[in-house]
Amino acid sequence: MKIALDAMGGDFAPQAAVAGAVLAAQRLAGKAQVVLIGSEAEIRSLLFEHGPSATTLEVVPASQVIEMGEHPTKAFQQKQDSSIAVGYRLLHSGEVDAFCSAGNTGAMLVGAMFTVKAVPGVLRPAIANFVPKVGGGMGIMVDVGANADCKPEMLEQFGELGSLYAQYVLGIARPKVGLMSLGEEEGKGSAVTQAAHQLLKVNPHVHFIGNIEGRDLFNDKADVIVCDGFTGNVILKMAESMYDIMVARQLNDAYFEKLNYETVGGSPILGINDNAIIGHGVSTPLAICNMLMQGYQMAQSGIVDQIKDTFKS
Amino acid sequence: MKIALDAMGGDFAPQAAVAGAVLAAQRLAGKAQVVLIGSEAEIRSLLFEHGPSATTLEVVPASQVIEMGEHPTKAFQQKQDSSIAVGYRLLHSGEVDAFCSAGNTGAMLVGAMFTVKAVPGVLRPAIANFVPKVGGGMGIMVDVGANADCKPEMLEQFGELGSLYAQYVLGIARPKVGLMSLGEEEGKGSAVTQAAHQLLKVNPHVHFIGNIEGRDLFNDKADVIVCDGFTGNVILKMAESMYDIMVARQLNDAYFEKLNYETVGGSPILGINDNAIIGHGVSTPLAICNMLMQGYQMAQSGIVDQIKDTFKS
Repeated sequence: MKIALDAMGGDFAPQAAVAGAVLAAQRLAGKAQVVLIGSEAEIRSLLFEHGPSATTLEVVPASQVIEMGEHPTKAFQQKQDSSIAVGYRLLHSGEVDAFCSAGNTGAMLVGAMFTVKAVPGVLRPAIANFVPKVGGGMGIMVDVGANADCKPEMLEQFGELGSLYAQYVLGIARPKVGLMSLGEEEGKGSAVTQAAHQLLKVNPHVHFIGNIEGRDLFNDKADVIVCDGFTGNVILKMAESMYDIMVARQLNDAYFEKLNYETVGGSPILGINDNAIIGHGVSTPLAICNMLMQGYQMAQSGIVDQIKDTFKS
Repeated sequence: MKIALDAMGGDFAPQAAVAGAVLAAQRLAGKAQVVLIGSEAEIRSLLFEHGPSATTLEVVPASQVIEMGEHPTKAFQQKQDSSIAVGYRLLHSGEVDAFCSAGNTGAMLVGAMFTVKAVPGVLRPAIANFVPKVGGGMGIMVDVGANADCKPEMLEQFGELGSLYAQYVLGIARPKVGLMSLGEEEGKGSAVTQAAHQLLKVNPHVHFIGNIEGRDLFNDKADVIVCDGFTGNVILKMAESMYDIMVARQLNDAYFEKLNYETVGGSPILGINDNAIIGHGVSTPLAICNMLMQGYQMAQSGIVDQIKDTFKS
C-alpha cells in the first residue's frame, strides 16, 4: 500500500511535510510506503538531513506548486505538473492508495472532482472533520466547508457518508446520526434542515436520532453530526480558536488537547472514488504524520467501496 | 424608571426570579424600581422571606403561566393573563420601561410582535447576545435564534441594529461590523451572506469590516457579529457547552468565566418598539439580577429611539 503526500502543501512546506512523512514512514514500516510529491531536489536534500533511512523514501517529481491564495479551479487546470495535480493522477491511476495535502483546500476539492470524481449517486462530496467526545471516543462532522449552501438531499447524504465513515474507519457499530439545528424538536430549524429531518427520519441506511444543538457537539448524543458546510466551518474554526485561547492562557487539559488539529491530522473528502485528505495550512510535522496515518487507515478500511455500494442503488 | 420581571419565567421560578429581583432592586435603589409580575400570593410570600425591605417591591398580579414547552403563539393568545402577556401590556402602555423574562423564548418573541411590535422599517427583529473578547470588552452577535432563515436584507439590518446597540448601550464609538462566513474573502460564503456582504459594504450606517470566520468570534476583529439565527444559535450553545465542560473539568479562568451566562443575564430583542430581554431558562438569581441590570441600561440608553430614528428613512 502507498500513501502519497503533497510535499509542497502547507505554510511550512516542504520542511514540515518532509519531516512528517519521515515520521509516518517509520510508523507505517512494513505496512505501507510513503510517497512524497514535489520538487525532487528540495525533497531529496531534506530527506538527506533526516538520515540514511529517510533517503529510501519514494519521491515523485512535480515541478509546480499551487499557492495558498490561488484560485482553485484556474490553478488546478493551469498547473498540470503541480504537486496536487500529480498527486491526483497517481491516485486515479491506482499507483497510490491515498493522497494527502495540507495545501490549497479549494484545489484539493477541485482536483478530486476533476480526476477521481464523485461516487455515482453522491450529489456533492463533503469534507469531514473529527470531534472528540467528552466521554471518550470520536465523532465525525460532515460537511465542514465544501458546500456552503445545501439542499435537504445533500444533508441526508452527508448523514449516510458520515455514518459509513464512522462504521468502517472509526469502528462504531451503529453510529447515531444527529442533525445540527437550533432546537431538539422536529419542527425547529431552517427550512432546509426541517426538510432534511424528514428525509433522514425514513432513510434506512442511517440510525437517525433527530436534531441536536450546538451544546451537543461534544457529548455522546450523536456520533455523526450533519450540517451544511457553512455551519460546520464556523463550528470547526470556533472550536480551534477556543483551543488556541486555552493554550495561550496556559490552561492544560487532556480532553481539550484533543481539539488540537495536530493530533487529528486532516479532513477526509467523503463521496469521491478514492481516498483524499486535506490537512490544515499550518500543519506541523506531527500533523502531517497523523494525516498520513489517517490516509492509511482510510485506505485500509475499504470505506470508498462501502460508499460506492451504498450509493449504487 | 421601572424594570419589570416575569417572576414565573425560568426553570427555577418563582424562587430564583424573586431572589434575583431582590438583588437587582438593591443595586438599582434610587435609580429604578423593580416590578414583579406573576402569582401575587407566591411572590409576596417569597419577598417576605427576603426581609422587610424586599416586601416593598411592586407586584403586578398575573394568574397564568406560559410553560416552557407550550406553543408560543397559541399560548400567548390563549393566556391573556399570563405573566408574559401582562408584562408586555405594561411595557406597551408605558407603565414599565423594560420587560425581562427567563421564560418561554418563543412566547417572548411572539409577545413582542403582537404588542409593542417591530420598529417600522425593520424587516424582522432579532435576538442579540454578548461575546466577551479575549483582549477585553464585549462584542455583540445578532441574530442568535429568532430567524433561522434570513434574507440578505435581514442580515444587513442585523448589522445596523447590532451597531446601534454597541454604540448606545456598550459605548463603543465606531463599532466594527463583521459578517460571519466561512472565509475572509468577499466571494466566500453562502449565497445569502455573499449578497449581504454587498449590501453591508455600501451601507452608510455601519462600519463594515468584511467577512469574519468562526475563529474571530473572540478576537478584536469585529464588535458586531452578523449572522443568521441558525448559525448564531449554534455558536451560542456551543460556547456555553464548552464553558460547562471547562467548569466540569475544574479549569478555572477569568476570561472563560465571562462565557458564563450568569454574568451576562439575558439577550435583548432588537428592532422592536420597546426594551425586552430574554433570559436563560436555567437562570439563577445572579443571572436574573444581571438581566434586570441590563434592562435598566437598555432603557437608560435610549437605544430604541436611536433604532426608530435610523429606520425612519
